[in-house]
Parts: sequence; structure tokens; C-alpha cells
Amino acid sequence: MHHASDILFSLFIVFLAAQLGGELAQRLKLPGVVGQIAAGCAIGPSLLGWITPAQVATGTPLDVLAEIGVVLLLFSVGLETRLDDLKKVGKVAVLVGVLGVLVPFGMGSLWAHGSGFSWDKSLFVAAAFVATSAGITARVLQELGALQRIESKVILGAAVIDDILAMLLLGVVVSLQSGGGFDPAHLLLVLAGAIGFIAVIGWGGTRVMRWNSGWLEKPLDPHSPLVIVLALCLGLAWLSTLVGLAAIIGAFLAGMIASETRQQHTLEQQAMPLLALLTPFFFVITGSKIDLHELASPAALLMLAAVTAIAIVSKLIGGWLGALSLGRRSATIVGFGMVPRGEVGVVIASLGLAAGVFNDRIYAIIVAMSLLTAMVTPPLLAWLLRRAGRAGVEPQADA
Amino acid sequence: MHHASDILFSLFIVFLAAQLGGELAQRLKLPGVVGQIAAGCAIGPSLLGWITPAQVATGTPLDVLAEIGVVLLLFSVGLETRLDDLKKVGKVAVLVGVLGVLVPFGMGSLWAHGSGFSWDKSLFVAAAFVATSAGITARVLQELGALQRIESKVILGAAVIDDILAMLLLGVVVSLQSGGGFDPAHLLLVLAGAIGFIAVIGWGGTRVMRWNSGWLEKPLDPHSPLVIVLALCLGLAWLSTLVGLAAIIGAFLAGMIASETRQQHTLEQQAMPLLALLTPFFFVITGSKIDLHELASPAALLMLAAVTAIAIVSKLIGGWLGALSLGRRSATIVGFGMVPRGEVGVVIASLGLAAGVFNDRIYAIIVAMSLLTAMVTPPLLAWLLRRAGRAGVEPQADA
Repeated sequence: MHHASDILFSLFIVFLAAQLGGELAQRLKLPGVVGQIAAGCAIGPSLLGWITPAQVATGTPLDVLAEIGVVLLLFSVGLETRLDDLKKVGKVAVLVGVLGVLVPFGMGSLWAHGSGFSWDKSLFVAAAFVATSAGITARVLQELGALQRIESKVILGAAVIDDILAMLLLGVVVSLQSGGGFDPAHLLLVLAGAIGFIAVIGWGGTRVMRWNSGWLEKPLDPHSPLVIVLALCLGLAWLSTLVGLAAIIGAFLAGMIASETRQQHTLEQQAMPLLALLTPFFFVITGSKIDLHELASPAALLMLAAVTAIAIVSKLIGGWLGALSLGRRSATIVGFGMVPRGEVGVVIASLGLAAGVFNDRIYAIIVAMSLLTAMVTPPLLAWLLRRAGRAGVEPQADA
Repeated sequence: MHHASDILFSLFIVFLAAQLGGELAQRLKLPGVVGQIAAGCAIGPSLLGWITPAQVATGTPLDVLAEIGVVLLLFSVGLETRLDDLKKVGKVAVLVGVLGVLVPFGMGSLWAHGSGFSWDKSLFVAAAFVATSAGITARVLQELGALQRIESKVILGAAVIDDILAMLLLGVVVSLQSGGGFDPAHLLLVLAGAIGFIAVIGWGGTRVMRWNSGWLEKPLDPHSPLVIVLALCLGLAWLSTLVGLAAIIGAFLAGMIASETRQQHTLEQQAMPLLALLTPFFFVITGSKIDLHELASPAALLMLAAVTAIAIVSKLIGGWLGALSLGRRSATIVGFGMVPRGEVGVVIASLGLAAGVFNDRIYAIIVAMSLLTAMVTPPLLAWLLRRAGRAGVEPQADA
């Protein structure tokens, strides 16, 4: 029974830390998610050591709960997003997604090569600069009730594009490492698969639901619309990993499909308790993955500062340029919205460590950069959105 | 990313199986939980093999999700239970709990000794006959909207007593196995700890909430009453494992405490989506733990029939005798309500296997007995409750 105690303790402590951290942050006028990530840092190896790296490694119960948390989060963001709204911002979103990948990848490669990495390793390091963590931005936008703003639609659309490109880029740099050479035909196939998946599910799914969602109420189960869309969410999350995309893309599509049903409002309300229980695991565990001790030298801190600055500035430039057609103020919001790297940077850093491309220090720095961008962005974004709101410039996607 | 695919596939398949099995059972006028357990059996090693025993072993993500599911289930049952109602049935519940442990333990020991086990091993086998799975009965009562009936209060109260006694009994039989001999002083201490925990938390917690629950709304988090009681639920679940009780006892207490707040109705509504997502994992995974192949011989089936018959009859007699003061009809409902063994029998069987007391066949038989009692009872209980309802004999605890 001892094992049951251990796991229940970790569940309790993660959940409690999330609530305390979130509350403290909100009292300090910061987004709650910043407090949750910081709380994770506090109970992790950096300070209290109540949550060890082994407990949050890939495939552990806590890691799976975190994954379910972010899947549900993107599902609920999808629930607040209509396909037609995304279509309206389609061109801008593609531009933001593409530039938001190319600029950080270019600047990251140059920095890594300048720091002494060979070109093939530099490209791997640069890949960790690329992928936006849609989860963190989405949560901030949700907390601020800003999901209906046009900038939010652009950010969400761009995050999907971003994920496709990041996946391709990772495919390229990994194949360069393994010495197998570059296979453009294979990459085109992967690209076609991912785009095809998104198009078929996004377009077909919304059609079906718009045509008739009465069948969701046919089962005898009183929670039937909810459980059917949750099954859809888990199913699409799984399918999207099969075509090489992040699970959250499938979850977002499932939410977007469900947003076309006439039960959308009820579903949104029922999703709230699920988010309240499970998303804290994602944010706290994201924070607990960093060990501040590994950065306790002036050289490491300096490198971290440089890496973080490049990560922020490059993404900001890419997103800003891409969204310039919306006006400078909106472009700035979109640019900052794309900055958080979060878990995706951590995943790429882990791959790099496993492949022997990164040493422990550069691994710690890339993880720390991912988390720093995730912690710095939310307050900035909140401030920008509040200011945009006050200035009366509140462009609505569905105006 | 391959690992993420695997775990997402298992989440999806477990959840989907639960919905299909539950729906099918309800269409056949059976409780949904029977269909969920059967669906687990189907996707487990018995038939399809999509969920392997290694995937649901203690401490795996699926096992932890199942644990969270049953913890939330008992929490929500607690939310519908007032301490005062339990007090009213206190004496009957204690009698049902005590007799519901003694009769199966006695009959189980006699059968095991008669089947050739030494006395000390017989007591271990008999311990697997003892513990009622409150989760399964509670779910059936909840599905039928019968949680406010007096029989339900007796069953829930008795399940708490049952768990205390089962824990003590397990302590005795394990110490007998390890050859350390019997230490009554230690057991008394354990007993005092468990009763003290329940009394202090149950009595003190409800007092605090009755006195004032306005502080639950003080945090800035819009979900604050919910997240605070969820933290309480996880915290008490953990604490109850520390004093040697099942996690679900703590969760039940947390729910009972929260039922005293003025936010009780909102909390009940918010708990529904949580149950819809997570309890299916408990029932499907309970079902997936059995491998029907191990029972594919006439001798094994005969032994299984004997063990299951003893398990059902002995619990029924114990519960029936204990609840006789409520009248025969109610006593029968209480007796059947105590029959399911579910996960507790599985846990004891695992301990027996690890301790070398059981061989693989007796292990499989005890697991199968636990699950059979869990599958046989719900339809019977549903039928009895419907009949009692139709007969106009609907004793209400809070009439």
C-alpha cells in the first residue's frame, strides 16, 4: 500500500502547489499560470525536491496526467473557436506560423554555430528555438477572456502551422544527425499526411456537426454529448500523434468540431471542472522539470540570458512581421503570443541529449530557456491585452 | 513521440470501451458499470489483448487514473451523504460491517482449510473474501438515484467499518505469514489510528463547514470552491493511506465534509464531468485485470463456482443479519449491496501471490471471484431496488 501513498502524495502536492501558486500570482496581478509554473519549480529539484525528475519522466503517471491536462486545455480552447473564424485569419496565421519558425531557426543556427557547434549540430540546437507552446498562450488568453479577439485566432491558427513546420524541421535535423542524409520525398509525404489529417478532420468534422448534432444525445448515458466529444478528443489526440503531430493539435480539432454543435455552451461549462482538476498538472509539472542548480554559474547564466534573448526576439520579429497587416499593436500581441516554448522545447532538448548532440549544460539551458519564455510571456501578454482593451481597440473576429 | 502515441491509444481505447460497454448494458436494462467491467474484460488479455497486464500493473499511468477515478467516485458519493444521516444508521451499519466481515472470513477459512491449505494460509485466503468494494455498489446506487435511501446509508457506513476491519485482518494474516507472530498491541494501535482519523476528520471537518463555508469563495480563482474541495479530497485520500485505510475512505470523508457547505449543489454538478471522464478508467481497468484463459479447465471453473458461491452467500448472510432490524426486504438489499469485492479482493490476491501463499491458479480464481461478485451484484441490486421502489416501500433516510 506504500506505493499508493506515494502517488497520492504527489497528486496532492502538485494540485495544492498549483492552487497556492496560482492564487499568489493572481493577487500580484500576474496570470495564474505563471504562479503554477513557479510553484512547480519550487516543489521540484530546484528547491524542495518533493517532486523528483524520475517522477515526471516521460510515461510516468504524473507525466501522463500533465499530457491529459494540456490535451483538455486545447480541447476547451477549440470549443471556443469556430472554423470560420480561423478561415478569416488564414493568410495572416500562415504567414505568422512560417515566419515564426524561419526567423528563430535562422537566428538560432547562427548563434549555435557562432558558439562553436558544427553546422549539423547547430541546426539541432536551432530546432529547440522553434516550436511555440500553444498551451501556455492559450491559457493566458482564456484567463483574460480574450479568445474571441482576432489576435487570438491568429495565434491559434499559427500554432497549428508552427507545429507542422516544427515537426518537419525536427525530421530534417534528426535525419542529418543519424547520417542517413536528407530525404525530401519522405518529408513531403509526412507534410502531406499532416496537412491532409488537419484538413479532413477539421473540414469534415465541422460539416458533420453543423449538419446534425442531435445524434450526440441518442445514447442513454445522461452525460452523452460530453462523453462522446471526450472520446473524440482522446481519439483525435492519438491519431494526430500517429501522423507525427502533437497530441494537442488533435484535441484542438476535436474541440473545434464540437464548437459547431448546438450543445456547445453546455460542453464549455462541463469542460470547466475538467480543466480545474487536470490542467494544473501540466503547468506544475512543466515547472518541476527544471533544476536551477544546474545554472548556478556565471557562464551558464550568461549563456542562458543570450539564448533566452535570442529565443524571444527572434520569435517576436517573426510573429510581428507576419501579423503586420493587422496593425502594429495587434502584431505585437501576436508576436508575444508566439514566444512561449514550454514543453516542446523540453522535448527537443531531451531528444538532443539522448542523441548526444547536447551536453548536460546546454540541455539545462535549453530547458530553462523554454520555461523562461513560458514565464516571461504571460504577464507581458496580459498587460498588452489589457492596454489594447482600454484603448478601445478591441478587434473582434466575429464582429 | 512513439510512447505518447501508445499511452494516448490506451486512454482512448479504455474510454471508448467504457462508453460502448456502458451503453450496451443500459440498453439491456443492466447497470452501466456492468458493461464497463465487461468491456474491460474484452479489451484485456481475455479477448482482444489491447490492454496488457503490464499496462495496468500498480503504479502505471492507467492504474493511477483508475485510482483517481474511484477516489472521485467516492468523493461524489460523499457529497450526497450527510454525517447526520450516517449517524442515524450508525448502529445498523456497524453491525452490518462487523457481521459482513466475520461471516465471510469464517466461511472462507473453513473452505480453504477443507481444500487443503494449512490454517495460516487458509486465513490469508479467507482475507480475500472479506473486503467489500464500496466503489461498485456506490456507482449502482448513484446510477439508480438511490443514494438517499436508508439502505444506501447503511451500506456506505458499513463499507467504512468493513474497510477498517479488513485492514486489521490483513495486518493479522500478513504478520502470521511472516512468522513474526501476532502482536495485539500493535494492531490495537493501528485500529485506534484508523478510528481516530475517521472520527476527527468526519466530525471536525463537518463542524468547520457547517459553521462557515464562505471562505471557500475567498480565492480569486473562479473555480475556487471546487478546487479547494478537490485538494481536500486528494489530501484526505493520501492521509487515509498513511493510517492504513483505503484512499477511497478519505475521499468519501472529503465529500461528506463538502456536503455540509452551502455550495454543495454546485459542487455536485461540477463533479459530474469529472466522474464522466475518470470513473470509466476504474471500471474498465478492473475488468481488464482478469485473464479468462487461466480459468479454462473444468477443475478451475468448479473451484471458481465454489469460491464465488461462498463469497456471495457469506456476505449476504452477514449483511442480512446485520440489517435485519430494517425489515427483511431492506436487509436483503443491504446484504446484496455488500457483496461486490472488486479491487480490494484483487489487491489481497496480489499480496498473496507475492508472499507465495497463492499459486497462479488460486490467484486467478480469487481475482475472478472478486470480479464476478462485482458483475453479478449490480443487476440484482438494481432489480431489488426497482422492486422495492414499485412496492411503495421507499424508506428515506432524510424523510
